[in-house]
Amino acid sequence: MKKLFFFLTALLLTVASFAQGQVERWGRYEVSYKASVKSNPFDVKLTATFTNGTDKMTVRGFYDGDDTFVIRFMPGSEGHWTFVTSSNVSALNRKRGAFDCVAPSEGNHGPVEIDGLHFKYADGTRYYPVGTTSYDWMHVPGDYPAKTVASLKASGFNKVRSLFFLHNLNIEYPEIYPFLKNADGSWDYQHFDPRYFRYVEDRIQALQEIGVEMDLILFHPYDGGRWGFDRMPLEANMRYLSYITARYASFRNIWWSMANEFGGLRQVPYDYWVDMTKQVVDGDPYGHPVSIHGYTAVYYDYSNPIFTHTSIQDHKPVMDAGNAFTIRNIYKKPVIFDEVCYEGNNGARWGILSGEEMLHRMYNGLMCGTYVTHAECYNSGPSDDFTNYLAFGGDFHGECWKRINFLRNEVLGDLPNPLGLADSSWDSYTSTAGPGYYLIYLGKQTMPEWRFDLPAKNNLYGGAPKAGDKYTVEILDTWNMTVTPWAGTFELVPGTTRYRFEDAHHGAVRLPDRPYLLLRVKKVSE
Amino acid sequence: MKKLFFFLTALLLTVASFAQGQVERWGRYEVSYKASVKSNPFDVKLTATFTNGTDKMTVRGFYDGDDTFVIRFMPGSEGHWTFVTSSNVSALNRKRGAFDCVAPSEGNHGPVEIDGLHFKYADGTRYYPVGTTSYDWMHVPGDYPAKTVASLKASGFNKVRSLFFLHNLNIEYPEIYPFLKNADGSWDYQHFDPRYFRYVEDRIQALQEIGVEMDLILFHPYDGGRWGFDRMPLEANMRYLSYITARYASFRNIWWSMANEFGGLRQVPYDYWVDMTKQVVDGDPYGHPVSIHGYTAVYYDYSNPIFTHTSIQDHKPVMDAGNAFTIRNIYKKPVIFDEVCYEGNNGARWGILSGEEMLHRMYNGLMCGTYVTHAECYNSGPSDDFTNYLAFGGDFHGECWKRINFLRNEVLGDLPNPLGLADSSWDSYTSTAGPGYYLIYLGKQTMPEWRFDLPAKNNLYGGAPKAGDKYTVEILDTWNMTVTPWAGTFELVPGTTRYRFEDAHHGAVRLPDRPYLLLRVKKVSE
Repeated sequence: MKKLFFFLTALLLTVASFAQGQVERWGRYEVSYKASVKSNPFDVKLTATFTNGTDKMTVRGFYDGDDTFVIRFMPGSEGHWTFVTSSNVSALNRKRGAFDCVAPSEGNHGPVEIDGLHFKYADGTRYYPVGTTSYDWMHVPGDYPAKTVASLKASGFNKVRSLFFLHNLNIEYPEIYPFLKNADGSWDYQHFDPRYFRYVEDRIQALQEIGVEMDLILFHPYDGGRWGFDRMPLEANMRYLSYITARYASFRNIWWSMANEFGGLRQVPYDYWVDMTKQVVDGDPYGHPVSIHGYTAVYYDYSNPIFTHTSIQDHKPVMDAGNAFTIRNIYKKPVIFDEVCYEGNNGARWGILSGEEMLHRMYNGLMCGTYVTHAECYNSGPSDDFTNYLAFGGDFHGECWKRINFLRNEVLGDLPNPLGLADSSWDSYTSTAGPGYYLIYLGKQTMPEWRFDLPAKNNLYGGAPKAGDKYTVEILDTWNMTVTPWAGTFELVPGTTRYRFEDAHHGAVRLPDRPYLLLRVKKVSE
Repeated sequence: MKKLFFFLTALLLTVASFAQGQVERWGRYEVSYKASVKSNPFDVKLTATFTNGTDKMTVRGFYDGDDTFVIRFMPGSEGHWTFVTSSNVSALNRKRGAFDCVAPSEGNHGPVEIDGLHFKYADGTRYYPVGTTSYDWMHVPGDYPAKTVASLKASGFNKVRSLFFLHNLNIEYPEIYPFLKNADGSWDYQHFDPRYFRYVEDRIQALQEIGVEMDLILFHPYDGGRWGFDRMPLEANMRYLSYITARYASFRNIWWSMANEFGGLRQVPYDYWVDMTKQVVDGDPYGHPVSIHGYTAVYYDYSNPIFTHTSIQDHKPVMDAGNAFTIRNIYKKPVIFDEVCYEGNNGARWGILSGEEMLHRMYNGLMCGTYVTHAECYNSGPSDDFTNYLAFGGDFHGECWKRINFLRNEVLGDLPNPLGLADSSWDSYTSTAGPGYYLIYLGKQTMPEWRFDLPAKNNLYGGAPKAGDKYTVEILDTWNMTVTPWAGTFELVPGTTRYRFEDAHHGAVRLPDRPYLLLRVKKVSE
């Protein structure tokens, strides 16, 4: 009895100033402690080790200003979790707590993980990245952040690439920055301003609530020296990465993009990006996706295992059929093309795609089992203005984005497995999502009919077609978002070469006189 | 005096059974010793350390049968070289010798080395690989080996890919194999048959004498179990690699190809190819080029620094313009496409290219500063026969090979620097070999005229064009091997977009009604 009393007292003494009693799986448990320290509170060492008896994980805490230290944790499994802290500050050391982790709510599938050449959520649900780009929406004033969340939700995009540091745009920013200032007006890289980190994380949380992944760009050169966050001392870079991972890694929808156009950060040596990536990976016990993005056609060494996927800026491999598959063959990890030029009217050659061309490049990538990120940059005036989604977010003004729900729901939503070419390098058009499931994207070709024709082998999934198999065909118009089943079935017979099957009656599908058609060819179940 | 006498006696006692007194730079010094050992002579440890006072190198010797041990050395610099041996057999230990290394003879430029994204000879002469493929010519009976050397010399090819182990063809091979046999008829992997290695090296030497590099394929799956050299114990693979590098590394024209279609060697784990490559690299003190070749569109991890270049089997990147440059952007080392299908008539989809298509793919690669290997496989009968150069060598029977001297001498021979796209990913057609030097390969396009048009920047070499610069144009017909200068010059003015320059007078070049044209656009020197 006496022992129990002692235990309860101890519990009361270490009670946190804020803590939750219950959190859902892959939700965020947060606990905070008050402590006043004489040294720089950002230098305090604070970790907490969580366990539910089976799983165990140590996470780092962070200083959140106002004598408050916070620990965040994303539990990966249900059950009763307990934790104990460790710190070089006695008031923060050996603090204990507990909470119950319950089943995830609807729409919470957990963080996105790597699954071979593709992605899935932690609960096993398939995740096909269909992302867009809005660099500065989190930072612009007014109702743009809220409008951006709304437009993302309506569009069907499930990932957005955004800058952590400010973009050097011709607008007034709120006077809150990631760092405090020294007396001489220079940045004090030893002291973060938690308010900046807090409003960014509020945006990340808002995306989480609508099921959108935040591909957070940790460095970028578009500062251009205005604030100098593109040219901080390398030690300041490292310190920032340590702090941001301690704060944000527990957001299940976070991805780390080490940089946009890394080559523009001229003071960072090429190989040092790997060191900085290691800093991120070491700071993220959950292993969120991490990559790096270069200038056009500048490929960082994505074969380095530290990068979970590619984040390529290059339109060349998605301008026509099949070349994106070569990139996948090379890297043997998920391939994302995060910049393939943008839909827009900004006059630069990278910002003048039609909506059709933007969507076409997305489908060219998708057919190869790779993922192409959308962006649009329509300006209504001669300079940057708030119609430019790429910069500011808000409402979309283009045409491609209207086809994203169709792409996600009707095309990707129907797939039994991820896509890839059935007969790589020999047939750039026939994609397969499993035995008896083919997508043939005709792109810019317009032809009166498509004569039934499949590769004789399915090199990706096996289960090669065989004579006598019956197939149906649907005609999907990716631009007009229609699905038209073709009446009748086709019956496989060996083709005129050993590499192909054709229809026993030389059957064909009559096509509408339109580009951007996608044929969905499925085996009739017996 | 007494001391000198002793030295001379010692010299006489250690005189080699064979040795040269003089050898040219990058030639091959060879010395041999007689010694009878009770254990397996192939297990004898024997090295020799050579020095000319400045340079120093230790090479391994090898057992050559008949109680003879051989040391070979390729001196990389002129001067008086001395050496001393080291061995666990006393009769081979501490043997000394000397020779003079003199200037290389004409045509001897030394071994090929890596030079960034390209190759050069050790003497600094540029080496552009223009290779072909003949798997089994070294092993087939009769006069085919001699005919092959003659046809290679006449064709202008400067590299050939050939198998070390026998190809499982329907012919009678001489009864000499790389290994001796055990009493039960199985291979004795502990005992090589030096006669086999000797006749292969004689062929390598014959190529050296005509300036052709031997890209020696160390393993291949085309044995198909007939002899089983495709499925030896891994230890036997390693032992073989140790022996062959000790024997062959001193041939200045040797390249190491770890395998053709490595995936066919099913008993070799994927990662073990790196271990085997390390065995080769460790056994080759000269650092000859080394790579590995896979099935179609199967890319080994060429980003591994152990591979000096790629040896890709994939036609997709060279079927049209510009995609090969992406491969180069990715790997950042010399890119060779060693198999892009073959010119021929063998009925398989990989062996039915026209000569035009074979040459077209070579130019597609070249324009991107990558290198495409030729091959042809014409059969005059229904099965393999001796008209198939790919298999047997002998005389060429196709059409592409006739255009190789033109390609090497007229096109490559004129380049001030290696090629690459001037404006990667934005312009797939304009290749540059330096400031003011452009090649525009029109491929299959036939058009009445080419309106003068250059990228505004030379992203590869700098020295961007500027207004007022004057250019001339020559029309090269890569198939008909003609060079036609266009009369008159063009004068640069800014184009209709900021990304291009055009001619001040909207000038154009009238083109012949032919495909496969190459425009050579050169700045007129002031």
